[in-house]
Amino acid sequence: MAAPSSDNPTIEWVDGSIRMIDQTRLPGEFAIINAHHVHTLVEAIKTLAVRGAPAIGVAGAYGVALATREFPVDRDRSAFDEAVQTIRSARPTAVNLAKRVDEVLADIRDSSLPAERAALQAADRIRDEELEASVAMGDRGAYFVLDLCDGGPVRAMTICNTGGLATVERGTALAVIQRLHELGHLTEALPVETRPLLQGGRLTTWELHRMGAPFRLMVDSAGPFLLSRGQADVVLIGADRIAANGDTANKIGSFSLALGARHAGVPFIVVAPESTIDMATETGTDIEIEDRGPTEVITAMGTPIAEAHTDAVNPAFDVTPAELITAIVTERRVIRLDQGDTLDRIDSLAPEDIL
Amino acid sequence: MAAPSSDNPTIEWVDGSIRMIDQTRLPGEFAIINAHHVHTLVEAIKTLAVRGAPAIGVAGAYGVALATREFPVDRDRSAFDEAVQTIRSARPTAVNLAKRVDEVLADIRDSSLPAERAALQAADRIRDEELEASVAMGDRGAYFVLDLCDGGPVRAMTICNTGGLATVERGTALAVIQRLHELGHLTEALPVETRPLLQGGRLTTWELHRMGAPFRLMVDSAGPFLLSRGQADVVLIGADRIAANGDTANKIGSFSLALGARHAGVPFIVVAPESTIDMATETGTDIEIEDRGPTEVITAMGTPIAEAHTDAVNPAFDVTPAELITAIVTERRVIRLDQGDTLDRIDSLAPEDIL
Repeated sequence: MAAPSSDNPTIEWVDGSIRMIDQTRLPGEFAIINAHHVHTLVEAIKTLAVRGAPAIGVAGAYGVALATREFPVDRDRSAFDEAVQTIRSARPTAVNLAKRVDEVLADIRDSSLPAERAALQAADRIRDEELEASVAMGDRGAYFVLDLCDGGPVRAMTICNTGGLATVERGTALAVIQRLHELGHLTEALPVETRPLLQGGRLTTWELHRMGAPFRLMVDSAGPFLLSRGQADVVLIGADRIAANGDTANKIGSFSLALGARHAGVPFIVVAPESTIDMATETGTDIEIEDRGPTEVITAMGTPIAEAHTDAVNPAFDVTPAELITAIVTERRVIRLDQGDTLDRIDSLAPEDIL
Repeated sequence: MAAPSSDNPTIEWVDGSIRMIDQTRLPGEFAIINAHHVHTLVEAIKTLAVRGAPAIGVAGAYGVALATREFPVDRDRSAFDEAVQTIRSARPTAVNLAKRVDEVLADIRDSSLPAERAALQAADRIRDEELEASVAMGDRGAYFVLDLCDGGPVRAMTICNTGGLATVERGTALAVIQRLHELGHLTEALPVETRPLLQGGRLTTWELHRMGAPFRLMVDSAGPFLLSRGQADVVLIGADRIAANGDTANKIGSFSLALGARHAGVPFIVVAPESTIDMATETGTDIEIEDRGPTEVITAMGTPIAEAHTDAVNPAFDVTPAELITAIVTERRVIRLDQGDTLDRIDSLAPEDIL
C-alpha cells in the first residue's frame, strides 16, 4: 500500500463518515476505520489509530461535522455539546485537537449555512491548510538544514512518526527528511523506535521505505550515544504543543535527544505548523502531560515484558526546554531560538523576509 | 521461584557441567541450562542466557574448567587453546570475561594440581570474590547514597539488570537498592525497561518483586524526563568496563540517564567490582562497543516492529564520560570523580580510610 497521499489519505470525509488508516495495525496490516459515530472517532483518537498533532486536529474538525449529523443542534443542543466535548478532550497534550474543534464551532456559529455544511467547509479548509503547511515546512526546513550543514549531505535523526500519517500528507519533521531526500541530500534517516507504542519502528520505517529513502532504525536510548559518536548531523522532531516561550512538548524521548544533541553540538530543530504554537500556554511546565497508564509499558506489541502486576509510569510526552532548541520551523518562518528570536517577536514578518 | 541465592544460584558447577538460569526466558518461565560442552556455554553467553559483567566473568572461569575436561591439555593443546579463545571472545565489551579467563589460565599454569582441579579452584575463588564484592558494594553504596541524599528516603532510578542475575547474588547497582530497601530507606526503585532485550523490564522487575521492594517500570526515554521533573534522587548503574580515566561502558541508555541526571542536578553513581576496572584501557573511546545486529531492534519479544527488511544500528553499550559521573563505588572504595578522585590515586588506601 502506498504512503499517505491524495489517493490514499490518512484521514478523509466519505459519505457522512470519517475514513482513517488504522495506525495501530501498521506495518503488518493495512486496515481502514470508518467512523460513522462520534464514539468511534473518540476511541480511534484515544487508541492512537489516528495520531500526530496535525492529524488529530483534522480528525477533531471532521468530528464536529460528524456530531452535527448524529446530534442535530436544533434537536438537542446539550447532547451535541457533550459529544463535541468528548472529542475535544480525547487527548490532552496536543493543542491542535481542542484548537481545531473550537475553530469549527466558531465557523458554525458565524455561518448562515446549515451546521453540517458549515462544519464540513471548515474541516476541509483546516485539512487544506495542514497540507499546504506540510509542503511549506518540508521545503523551508530542508533548505534551513542544508544551510546549517554546509550544503549537506545530511544524516538526520528523528523520533516517533511525523510523516503523512501524522498530518494529512508529507508531515512535519519527516516532510523535511523527505524533501532532503528528493533534493538528493539525504545520506540516511536515523529514526528511533519510540517505545512504548513504537511509532518510529512501525510507522516511520513504513513511510521511509515508501519514499525510497535510506534509513536505519535504533532503540530510543541509542540516539544520544550515536550523536556523541558523531553519527548524525541534525535532529528533527515534531511537536504536540509549543508554549509561548518556545518550550516544546513532544513524544517521550525528544528531551533525551535534545540533551544528546546539545552535548554533541548538533542542531536540534522542531518542525511544526503554526497551529501547534499555543501562545496561551506560558511555559512547558504549564503543559498537561498525558500519562497513558501501565499497560503500554508492561507489554511490547501485546506481549508481557515484566513481572506480573508490575506498575509503571507512562508519560506519553516530555518537554524540551527552549534553551536546548536551535530553531522552530513552521510553514511561515524559522524562529532561531539559539539567536534570541522569540515566538511573538518575528510573528509579523512576511515569509520572504525570514528565509 | 526465589531470587538468585546460594540455594538457587545464577550460575554453578554441578557434576562436570555448568548449570545456569536461562535469563532469556524470564520472567515468563524459569528454565535451567546445563552446559556440558564449551559450545553450549559460548552460545549461552552470546544469546545473553547468562549476562551481566560479573556473571559472565564467573561463567568464563568455569568455562575454562569445562574446556579442560572436553579438550584435555595434554592430549591436544591447540584444541584447548581454541576452545578457551571462543569463550574469551564470546562478548567483547565487558572486561570481566577475558580477565577472568586469563586469571584461571594463569592459575592452571602456576599450579601443581591437574588442570581441571586447578581451574575449578580458581573459578570457585572468583565466584566467592564476586559474592563478597556484591555484599560489600551493596553496603558501601547504600550508606554513600544515604549520605548524598540527606539520610533518605531514596527514589532510585536504574537501568538494565544489575542484580543477583548479573552477578552471583545480590548484584552491583541493584544490590545498593536492595540494601536501601532492607534498611527501610527506599521510597521506590525506578527501573527503565532497557530495550532492545528488556533486561530492566524482564529481569529487574522479577528481582525487585522477589525482594519485596516498591517499584515502577518505565520506558528508557522516560528516564531523563522524570529526572527533569524531580522524580528521582539518584541514578545507580552497573558497568561492563571502566577505563583508567573513569569513562564507563555500560548498557545502552546509561549515557542518556547520565545526561538527564546532570541536567537535573541528581547524583549519577556507577557501582561495580574492582574486576570491572580496566587500567589498560586509557579512555572510553578505546573500548570496543559490541553491535549486536538488526534482529534485536526490528523485533520486540520476537514480534516484528518495523517494515520488513529494515536495517538497524544496535550498539549494546554506550560510554558515559567520567565528567558526568558523581562517583564509582566498588567493594573497596568510593571514588568521587566529582571531587577530583582518580582511579589510580586512591588505589592504595585501606577501605576504612575511604568510607
